Amino acid sequence: MSVTAPLGFRAAGVAAGLKSRDARDLALVVNDGPSRAAAGVFTRNRIKAAPVLWSEQVLTGGRVRAVVLNSGGANACTGPAGFQDTHATAEKVAEVLGDSAGEIAVCSTGLIGERLPMDRLLPGLDLVAAQLTRDGGLAAADAIRTTDTVTKISFRRGEGYMVGGMAKGAGMLAPAMATMLSVVTTDADVPASELDRVLRKAVGLTFDRLDTDGCMSTNDTVLLLASGASGITPDPAEFEKKVTEVCADLARQLQVDAEGATKAIAIEVVGAAHEDEAVAVGRAVARSNLLKCAIHGEDPNWGRVLSAVGTTEAVFEPDRVNVAINGIWICRGGAAGDDRAKVDLRPRDVTITVDLSAGPHSATIHTTDLTADYVHENSAYST
Amino acid sequence: MSVTAPLGFRAAGVAAGLKSRDARDLALVVNDGPSRAAAGVFTRNRIKAAPVLWSEQVLTGGRVRAVVLNSGGANACTGPAGFQDTHATAEKVAEVLGDSAGEIAVCSTGLIGERLPMDRLLPGLDLVAAQLTRDGGLAAADAIRTTDTVTKISFRRGEGYMVGGMAKGAGMLAPAMATMLSVVTTDADVPASELDRVLRKAVGLTFDRLDTDGCMSTNDTVLLLASGASGITPDPAEFEKKVTEVCADLARQLQVDAEGATKAIAIEVVGAAHEDEAVAVGRAVARSNLLKCAIHGEDPNWGRVLSAVGTTEAVFEPDRVNVAINGIWICRGGAAGDDRAKVDLRPRDVTITVDLSAGPHSATIHTTDLTADYVHENSAYST
Repeated sequence: MSVTAPLGFRAAGVAAGLKSRDARDLALVVNDGPSRAAAGVFTRNRIKAAPVLWSEQVLTGGRVRAVVLNSGGANACTGPAGFQDTHATAEKVAEVLGDSAGEIAVCSTGLIGERLPMDRLLPGLDLVAAQLTRDGGLAAADAIRTTDTVTKISFRRGEGYMVGGMAKGAGMLAPAMATMLSVVTTDADVPASELDRVLRKAVGLTFDRLDTDGCMSTNDTVLLLASGASGITPDPAEFEKKVTEVCADLARQLQVDAEGATKAIAIEVVGAAHEDEAVAVGRAVARSNLLKCAIHGEDPNWGRVLSAVGTTEAVFEPDRVNVAINGIWICRGGAAGDDRAKVDLRPRDVTITVDLSAGPHSATIHTTDLTADYVHENSAYST
Repeated sequence: MSVTAPLGFRAAGVAAGLKSRDARDLALVVNDGPSRAAAGVFTRNRIKAAPVLWSEQVLTGGRVRAVVLNSGGANACTGPAGFQDTHATAEKVAEVLGDSAGEIAVCSTGLIGERLPMDRLLPGLDLVAAQLTRDGGLAAADAIRTTDTVTKISFRRGEGYMVGGMAKGAGMLAPAMATMLSVVTTDADVPASELDRVLRKAVGLTFDRLDTDGCMSTNDTVLLLASGASGITPDPAEFEKKVTEVCADLARQLQVDAEGATKAIAIEVVGAAHEDEAVAVGRAVARSNLLKCAIHGEDPNWGRVLSAVGTTEAVFEPDRVNVAINGIWICRGGAAGDDRAKVDLRPRDVTITVDLSAGPHSATIHTTDLTADYVHENSAYST
């Protein structure tokens, strides 16, 4: 279903020869309207890829006709020439669609620092445009994969409208969004300003709370496009809920497919004085390589949880912190609690609960274990 | 030579049965004076082990008669009972030496969250005190090892005085000091206030700039003890230089012995607007798991350097950043520079130079690669 689940969208994914192996690497998602309202959230990395710089400008207009996405190259750190490549890509898509380049968003993913092979990409755009169909969402989702082992798609049904989405991301998953590209579509009729509000909130609660390896990418982009083709103006709260659910579902798929991961770890922080502090504590725990190794080894090493909590500025008293792993409170009052032998770490899903005993706020950060496979995958070749 | 290189110090290291295997695990360093001036720098982690809380109090007095150190248990997150264990340890050492517990510093290292076996530790203190000798520095350095594969010792000769030191640390090496214990001794005659100034400065330039896995420990302690036994009041600048050299030498030994590491990486940040920003940039790069994997794979993936630089608040323009790996400027002006094939990453020592082109300041952070062995070592058992 993916991005073509809602009415008004066509998509396609083709092999343009950007990747060395013969796989799909170029995707196009077109909004046929009647509305073109759109919103975007981008990486907070100060080193931004050319397509991010371009698409940020496009999104200031609140309108997107089409999104072109490529794997096989991030077009980041490529200087003015790289930006011209992005510009040329948007111009070419606009030409094929008989539209304006100013409403064509561009996303790229892959190795940083190398120019895209434009001699293959530009002809590929003719190819992908020729294959646009109402059921091309899956092919598009396939084309944006890099080290992703599976395509990531999702959809939810609202009252008379649909929300669909696709995403890619397996490594460099961190703070200001898991390193990732995602396009979410809807046939609801929603103005750009409302899309912007809803998307920021949804991303803040989902992609932003996935932190698998602490590395923030230069290319992170999440776009929300509304065709209005259902003719339905949704209830704002319901619409926000559906978009958030699609983003959460995609984020979960990114987590499960994270490079080398054997465990999906939820760091649930409760009893925080402020939600921000709950997020900060969860993120600190999620970034402890030592803890991530311990969970990989199915060792309930709560000392590594506490030592990560202690690096934050959050309000807490060391002797009032409690920690549970998979429901067993093995740390109570900052010291050993229930018998650690009771903790069953064999299941793939692991929940680490940190109770700061400092207030009513909470947040959950999602991460993975750190494995030899992660090291192999990220040392064996450039990504 | 270690901590007994300077006059006025005795030391010993014995096996007290704190570790499961039959190895040395208890060390004692005694300052026979005439001076007892001392200074300490401790972990900035808010979750502090009992011996850290104790020793911080001792050091407020600026006088230390002896330091007792154990491996085989961190005595962190052990609650009031754990603090009583530290207190009892200091009392016992004071009793054996016929001195005051208020001038006995305590250091512990090992697994967090478990009580120390006091029934073995207390008798061990009689044993270690009985073995104190002027040449016991090496045995003491051996006794504080945890996953360290070698003992770490150093000394430097000043004008009429000596500076000696020992350290332990192989994992959890991070920000506010590599996770480590270190005792540095001198027979120079230096008041506690001056020792404090010198030690803070030396630690800030050495141990604080080693960041192998981003994990900050609950037990980090560096102590500087002066016996005054040489009768020499050193030139302040020379003394600072010698102490800094000993700390730098020990920090280098920690780096080379870091768990699983096959590369010693120096992140040299130049052209920064402020030294603090150079440190922040170096630390961000040192903490990129993706980069650390790439260096392990001998892949000069400078895009992973730039994406880490971009997460900082340091002053720089993305299109003016240059990066060299082992002297080859593979990134110039934020884009591809010299041929990456020219970078030789086969040597153990790797230097990554980041030129921010934003000012005259610089700093170097030391780290290591991320390897499957690191994962194995930290997932196979609790440490």
